[in-house]
Amino acid sequence: MAKTNPGRFFEDYKLGDVIHHAVPRTVAEGERALYHALYPARHALYSSDEFAGNCGLDGSPIDDLIAFHIVFGKTVPDISLNAVANLGYAEGRWLKPVYPGDTLRSSSEVIGLKQNSNGKSGVVWVRTRGVNQMDEPVLDYVRWVMVRKGDLDAPAPDTVIPDLKPSLDADDLVIPAGLSFEDYDFTLAGEPHRWGDYDVGEKIDHVDGVTVEEAEHMLATRLWQNTAKVHFDATFRPDGKRLIYGGHVISMARALSFNGLANAQMIVGLNGGAHANPCFAGDTIRAWSEVLDKADTDAPGVGAVRLRLVAAKHGAPAFSLKGEDGKYHPDVMLDLDYWALMPK
Amino acid sequence: MAKTNPGRFFEDYKLGDVIHHAVPRTVAEGERALYHALYPARHALYSSDEFAGNCGLDGSPIDDLIAFHIVFGKTVPDISLNAVANLGYAEGRWLKPVYPGDTLRSSSEVIGLKQNSNGKSGVVWVRTRGVNQMDEPVLDYVRWVMVRKGDLDAPAPDTVIPDLKPSLDADDLVIPAGLSFEDYDFTLAGEPHRWGDYDVGEKIDHVDGVTVEEAEHMLATRLWQNTAKVHFDATFRPDGKRLIYGGHVISMARALSFNGLANAQMIVGLNGGAHANPCFAGDTIRAWSEVLDKADTDAPGVGAVRLRLVAAKHGAPAFSLKGEDGKYHPDVMLDLDYWALMPK
Amino acid sequence: MAKTNPGRFFEDYKLGDVIHHAVPRTVAEGERALYHALYPARHALYSSDEFAGNCGLDGSPIDDLIAFHIVFGKTVPDISLNAVANLGYAEGRWLKPVYPGDTLRSSSEVIGLKQNSNGKSGVVWVRTRGVNQMDEPVLDYVRWVMVRKGDLDAPAPDTVIPDLKPSLDADDLVIPAGLSFEDYDFTLAGEPHRWGDYDVGEKIDHVDGVTVEEAEHMLATRLWQNTAKVHFDATFRPDGKRLIYGGHVISMARALSFNGLANAQMIVGLNGGAHANPCFAGDTIRAWSEVLDKADTDAPGVGAVRLRLVAAKHGAPAFSLKGEDGKYHPDVMLDLDYWALMPK
Repeated sequence: MAKTNPGRFFEDYKLGDVIHHAVPRTVAEGERALYHALYPARHALYSSDEFAGNCGLDGSPIDDLIAFHIVFGKTVPDISLNAVANLGYAEGRWLKPVYPGDTLRSSSEVIGLKQNSNGKSGVVWVRTRGVNQMDEPVLDYVRWVMVRKGDLDAPAPDTVIPDLKPSLDADDLVIPAGLSFEDYDFTLAGEPHRWGDYDVGEKIDHVDGVTVEEAEHMLATRLWQNTAKVHFDATFRPDGKRLIYGGHVISMARALSFNGLANAQMIVGLNGGAHANPCFAGDTIRAWSEVLDKADTDAPGVGAVRLRLVAAKHGAPAFSLKGEDGKYHPDVMLDLDYWALMPK
Repeated sequence: MAKTNPGRFFEDYKLGDVIHHAVPRTVAEGERALYHALYPARHALYSSDEFAGNCGLDGSPIDDLIAFHIVFGKTVPDISLNAVANLGYAEGRWLKPVYPGDTLRSSSEVIGLKQNSNGKSGVVWVRTRGVNQMDEPVLDYVRWVMVRKGDLDAPAPDTVIPDLKPSLDADDLVIPAGLSFEDYDFTLAGEPHRWGDYDVGEKIDHVDGVTVEEAEHMLATRLWQNTAKVHFDATFRPDGKRLIYGGHVISMARALSFNGLANAQMIVGLNGGAHANPCFAGDTIRAWSEVLDKADTDAPGVGAVRLRLVAAKHGAPAFSLKGEDGKYHPDVMLDLDYWALMPK
Repeated sequence: MAKTNPGRFFEDYKLGDVIHHAVPRTVAEGERALYHALYPARHALYSSDEFAGNCGLDGSPIDDLIAFHIVFGKTVPDISLNAVANLGYAEGRWLKPVYPGDTLRSSSEVIGLKQNSNGKSGVVWVRTRGVNQMDEPVLDYVRWVMVRKGDLDAPAPDTVIPDLKPSLDADDLVIPAGLSFEDYDFTLAGEPHRWGDYDVGEKIDHVDGVTVEEAEHMLATRLWQNTAKVHFDATFRPDGKRLIYGGHVISMARALSFNGLANAQMIVGLNGGAHANPCFAGDTIRAWSEVLDKADTDAPGVGAVRLRLVAAKHGAPAFSLKGEDGKYHPDVMLDLDYWALMPK
């Protein structure tokens, strides 16, 4: 009996299957410190227990993207080991903050299948859910990937394409219990700009750039127990470079966005995202954001803002996104669409 | 009076001497997080407090190899600062799990001495013991190293070669108090293979490879407070590379062995080990294992498995070990022989 | 309204202004572990809760230089984003140890201003204070930087040059409450040399060298939430190297100084410091110290020693400092003058 995991192929996924992913993970102050070392993360709510306490929380949560990376990382051996491409995200919601000491697990339900016309691969849609040690959901999101077939003769499944929202409505967002920005300290947070100061359509160039090293992205990707071989094994490519985990670019861009969006504290929704072009060691990542929408919430002093976050390589023209042909500019690496909470 | 440590030379070791090594170390969640960032470690018992609790432990212990590296690291200034070679290990036993908050110290007793025929160096055998803040032993092992003489005129000591077991017997192994695999969750652990599914003689290719960077092995080696100069100082070699701490290769290979041995949870015995060839930054490490022996234990649901763990450079033929001349294949870096505990 | 921080220019500083710096930071075991991974730090008081407890403290504090880096890092967006040069430090005092769980904030008062004769820049002196979550001061120090003018037509301020002590007196030093070295364990600390064994004028070559990598200094500098672009963005220089944060060199040199000064446990005063020449990835850092002064203290068994700590590149002649022209040797990177506490 073969003992190692060959990964699943397209024909191994059945609509409605729920896959329980392995290796639960307790997160603690160590993961937080590493996150600060790996990314220029400075959002005060994730940096200071006192600041978070003044916002009504029980101390500073683990960064929302740490929760995402850990829940996502657990899915890799079951979902994307034989994936050709990570095609998209939708309907991502953070449901409960993760605190030091919490243990995360994740599972994925197959909600869509479509074999490609070439018969060699297909698209699999999964809804992944992360839960803590109390079985409370902390995050769920839909992801779809293109996966190779292992047996080309396996019959094509019935095509089922899930009906996904192009963007979450403000009503879909879950505001953490107790959250209040009524006593928010803008000086400690680092910027004076309130929810009311941002206009839909406004674009912000986040100014700073970070050049990425092999050691850094491998440390990060391993920390999330993401096992995709392309991130670690230099023998996959003739140039010896490793493909950087797309989530590393997300976290880097989000951290860079502090400069201009220091008060976009909590990420509560992921509407969509594209890893437009690969990122490699030596690339210098820059970021810009666009305000796509705004909404009020019931929580005291808390507004929601829908943001596009774009990461692009140094040298790309300002606010690069897509060309007239609708294709991403070759220097654009990430186009992310998310909801964050901001003081009003 | 010279203030810096010149290290000990062969003639400075006397049979029966006990050397108390410096710099006690409190380990905590930070060391655990870094271990997950440095190695693709996924054994569930060391990742999740809940998983470990279900196995009868008081939360998730610090990885057994962290305990080894820290206890070992403390010995370097006294044992191997002037070592020419690290020759072997024997009779290593993990005696008690290490938990966040524990403080480790170590000491070594000189149990063997043999001057080399060239008169310029000799072999020193030490039995090293690590203890926690309650003075409870957590680990002991025998190591022998070749050490230069400082004074070539110093008389040769009486030759004493300790009588060491080629392998620990199953009866020698210490099972952590309370350990039970009766409620073991194979899904969360990541693989279905039980102790009974492994056959003596079976070999497993662990598939994945990791390319190593200078920054990573230096971070790791410093974390264990291992001060051997060759790991940090690029001016030692004309190519500017640093010799990677052999323990870094051990941890990398052990973590890679998850793929096929996810249920070989706890390391309880170290029968022997050879750092067959050096490892340098840029090398891609792959690993394979061979089941050498199996034994039952008294703990509920717990079996023991004796494993050979081999790390080799990418490009080495499958299951490379030694040539017909008995010498290690030049791409083999590590040949380790250990006992692990597995659910039955 | 521009949302991003352009930094302050010389004309933006007014004498007596107090700037409250953003992003409070809770420090914990993760930061400690990373410090041990980033630097060969082995001072026992910062490594072991038990050792620190035996010295009268409530467990092992966070390294004094972590406190410095975090307090300093917070000032960068307000003080040195447009700085041309970091000119000096004076009157630095550690006022209370920082423990895991503490949250640090910092503020700076403008205590001196002097426009340069070229009219394009000026020197700003600030006294920076770090406090914990109880508003207790943990550190204060004076720093002066040369800052560009944004508006060359802005009028020059009145010149005020603060009167700074060339060195703190022993009476200025604050000894942590409860500190006692009466039961100090020299074996566990790693060296037998007491305060009485060091002579004013004595120089110690710390022997070891560490070659620095890009990934390492960026991890460190980000960990302190220091946002200065030159440390992270390879596009600033044609050679793609990043200027290493001067504090990284301070921590590396201090850690190397363990070999010869293992008992110089606590840093309590910073008399001055010069970042004499830049440090880049690939440099191998070596260090030497000189005993500048000694003083007694009221704490049981505790003496104070004033030390010069010099970091120089591999290849620099032994004990390099300045040439006959009074200029630093081109391979000298750091010349630091500090007070530490030592067992008598």
